[in-house]
Amino acid sequence: MASEKNVDLLITGGTVLCMDADLRTLENHSVAVDKGKILDIFPDGSAVYQARETLNAADCIVMPGLINAHTHLPMTYFRGLADDLPLQAWLNDYIWPLEAKLLDRDFIRASALHGAAEMIKNGITQIHDMYFDMPSIADACSQAGLRAIIGEAVIEARLSDPASRKALGTKVLEMRRRYWDDPLVDFDLAPHSLYACSQATLEQCAQVASEHGILSHTHLSETKNEVEQCLAQHGKKPVFYLSDLGLLALPAVYAHAIWVDEDEIALLAENPASIAVCTECNLKLASGILPLSSYLKHGVNVCLATDGVASNNNLDLLAELDVTAKLHKAINEDPAFLPAQQALGMATRNAAKALGISDKRGSLEVGKDADITVLDACCLNGQPLYNPYSHVVYALGARSVRDVVINGELVLRQGNLTKVDEAEIIASAKQYQTKIKAALH
Amino acid sequence: MASEKNVDLLITGGTVLCMDADLRTLENHSVAVDKGKILDIFPDGSAVYQARETLNAADCIVMPGLINAHTHLPMTYFRGLADDLPLQAWLNDYIWPLEAKLLDRDFIRASALHGAAEMIKNGITQIHDMYFDMPSIADACSQAGLRAIIGEAVIEARLSDPASRKALGTKVLEMRRRYWDDPLVDFDLAPHSLYACSQATLEQCAQVASEHGILSHTHLSETKNEVEQCLAQHGKKPVFYLSDLGLLALPAVYAHAIWVDEDEIALLAENPASIAVCTECNLKLASGILPLSSYLKHGVNVCLATDGVASNNNLDLLAELDVTAKLHKAINEDPAFLPAQQALGMATRNAAKALGISDKRGSLEVGKDADITVLDACCLNGQPLYNPYSHVVYALGARSVRDVVINGELVLRQGNLTKVDEAEIIASAKQYQTKIKAALH
Repeated sequence: MASEKNVDLLITGGTVLCMDADLRTLENHSVAVDKGKILDIFPDGSAVYQARETLNAADCIVMPGLINAHTHLPMTYFRGLADDLPLQAWLNDYIWPLEAKLLDRDFIRASALHGAAEMIKNGITQIHDMYFDMPSIADACSQAGLRAIIGEAVIEARLSDPASRKALGTKVLEMRRRYWDDPLVDFDLAPHSLYACSQATLEQCAQVASEHGILSHTHLSETKNEVEQCLAQHGKKPVFYLSDLGLLALPAVYAHAIWVDEDEIALLAENPASIAVCTECNLKLASGILPLSSYLKHGVNVCLATDGVASNNNLDLLAELDVTAKLHKAINEDPAFLPAQQALGMATRNAAKALGISDKRGSLEVGKDADITVLDACCLNGQPLYNPYSHVVYALGARSVRDVVINGELVLRQGNLTKVDEAEIIASAKQYQTKIKAALH
Repeated sequence: MASEKNVDLLITGGTVLCMDADLRTLENHSVAVDKGKILDIFPDGSAVYQARETLNAADCIVMPGLINAHTHLPMTYFRGLADDLPLQAWLNDYIWPLEAKLLDRDFIRASALHGAAEMIKNGITQIHDMYFDMPSIADACSQAGLRAIIGEAVIEARLSDPASRKALGTKVLEMRRRYWDDPLVDFDLAPHSLYACSQATLEQCAQVASEHGILSHTHLSETKNEVEQCLAQHGKKPVFYLSDLGLLALPAVYAHAIWVDEDEIALLAENPASIAVCTECNLKLASGILPLSSYLKHGVNVCLATDGVASNNNLDLLAELDVTAKLHKAINEDPAFLPAQQALGMATRNAAKALGISDKRGSLEVGKDADITVLDACCLNGQPLYNPYSHVVYALGARSVRDVVINGELVLRQGNLTKVDEAEIIASAKQYQTKIKAALH
């Protein structure tokens, strides 16, 4: 008799969407997880493992955890604070004054923890965050069990002198040293935008990113206005400016990238650039609708993001998938544009490519990190089920997220967070709500 | 000591969004329900009732039940069957052949029951349906406890002779007689579209609707192609053709109405016409984006709908609210366009106006029917909460629907359907899925 191998976790009987290079769809398959990795994916009953914990995933869809490629986690406490305003009024009259009054380590840690827990409940296993105070965000993600690559927003007004500009790279390396034994968090460089950084600062970012092989994360061409400003100040379109600065040649995620011309897209395609599409935020702030078909035609790597909750007002990446896939069919006058499977690829394997972690995540394959989302399709809005990809994108929604595994650990079990107390997080949000309301007056 | 009045149901401690003419928002208020009606809305503790059942709605939003103004309930079993196809291929190659092969009373009844239960779980208390076999749909809605106005699609190809055309009105009146004692269901006339009905049939519909004061329900200008066809065949734009037929002067709900010119919108505004906006369906089939700002500018009554699940692929009206409010901000390049409160009005009071039931439903007011939806905001995606309208539209989502009251009866309690067995409905869907898959080959 063959001896049974011991493993940490078995997920049995599901429909497994591998999202690997062959886009394999495996019905009635099980996934064995051990020591944080995917050990095996096998037809039910064809292998025997003794597991510490088993999830029955019959009637479920088992897929790579969703990756949210552009977020501002500590803004969660600003959800729905000021809607229906233009971007500049929203920033100048609400967000920035409140940040100036309220932000401290406790606020950031608590608001980020709330956001991290919410991400997990929405089936998201990794985020790409940009804000201030990297350690507080890292600690919050680590506590909830969420993976994150975290960058501190580089904004000219916050740099006191040339020395602090020089220290940009040092800071990232210092954070990596500090969290060397935490498998969940990593750090990158986040020059906020072309308009919020001087040319010298952007060039310094390029030098640091190049020297240390650090990913960068930047807002790009979100509004028409900032594009005009770039043309006026630098005499060139934003992507060409990025190119001249040396940044474009380096791996980077650009958020929004709505107001780009065809020649800019062609240039992006020649470089290791990825676009984080923030559809709901862009619609809500009336920033615009990006030329998605042109990006795809040129072969630019495109992934998806919620942006911060304050401009969305949710952290629901499944909803982004739904809206993005539908919207661009209408924009392109083609109902066959961006089928469900391709859309799901953007939120998984494309996002992993964008973050430079394709070797470890973004698909379910033996040897990769066990970052897995289980959706329960045994519900009214999940039946009948003819095509699992269609259901993930158009039908199931975040309420179907049942289990989430990150780094091999079950962080959401049957809809319940395992590492943090949801009631405590809600109680904290209510306390801060009172403070924030008071600060508004 | 004052004697306590006995009532059927009390909903205590919520934030009540009345959606009445004054758009009152009442914090810490209770709603007393008796004999199917709203008996009282009062500040917590200011009145005393003895209730058969009490719902604690602290941390909840209490609002009028959502009204879904254009649906095809029995198509629920076709969810996600054939995506990413043009409208005509989807209809000709999938939907119509399957309907021809499979539709019978049992199919319609079972698929409609599934849809009715799903509507309730999504916070919808009334639908406006168009399909075939009115009694099966009526029985399904009645069984689940969902309100419905049901019309049989009038399609030329299904009318055998002039006599059946004459019988159109008789049929509606017969249905009203048959269901006279059922408070949940009513019937109307549903000439499918200008392209699916002959001029004689449409004129007959107008005569019947006028003679008996029956609402009518029609697909209008969903595709560019049908508008061109109307121009070619009748020498006029669809709305002018409707006017000449006598239909436009009568109360009607027009679904889609995307490809309309300014002069058509002006004419619609002069008549008792309402538009059912089906944003997600229109995007998914790439039909287009309707000129919402122009409708609002002219004062046309606009409501919202999911359309049938087969082209959406969900029955989530809260998602329609979210996408519609966001999309049209971008289309109008104005983030202040269609604020959350106005959007919610479309799915409640405007829809009641469209269906000719403003005196009974669409708002929470003493004396009106008790059709009420309770959303639980005590959840990660519901906190903090600064503005309840914003949360209903942008943040909470269908997973927050906790309780639903229709005609004074609690049909969803703590997320559980009270009148039908969800597991049985799911089991039936799985059985039909097998039959439908077989019929595809």
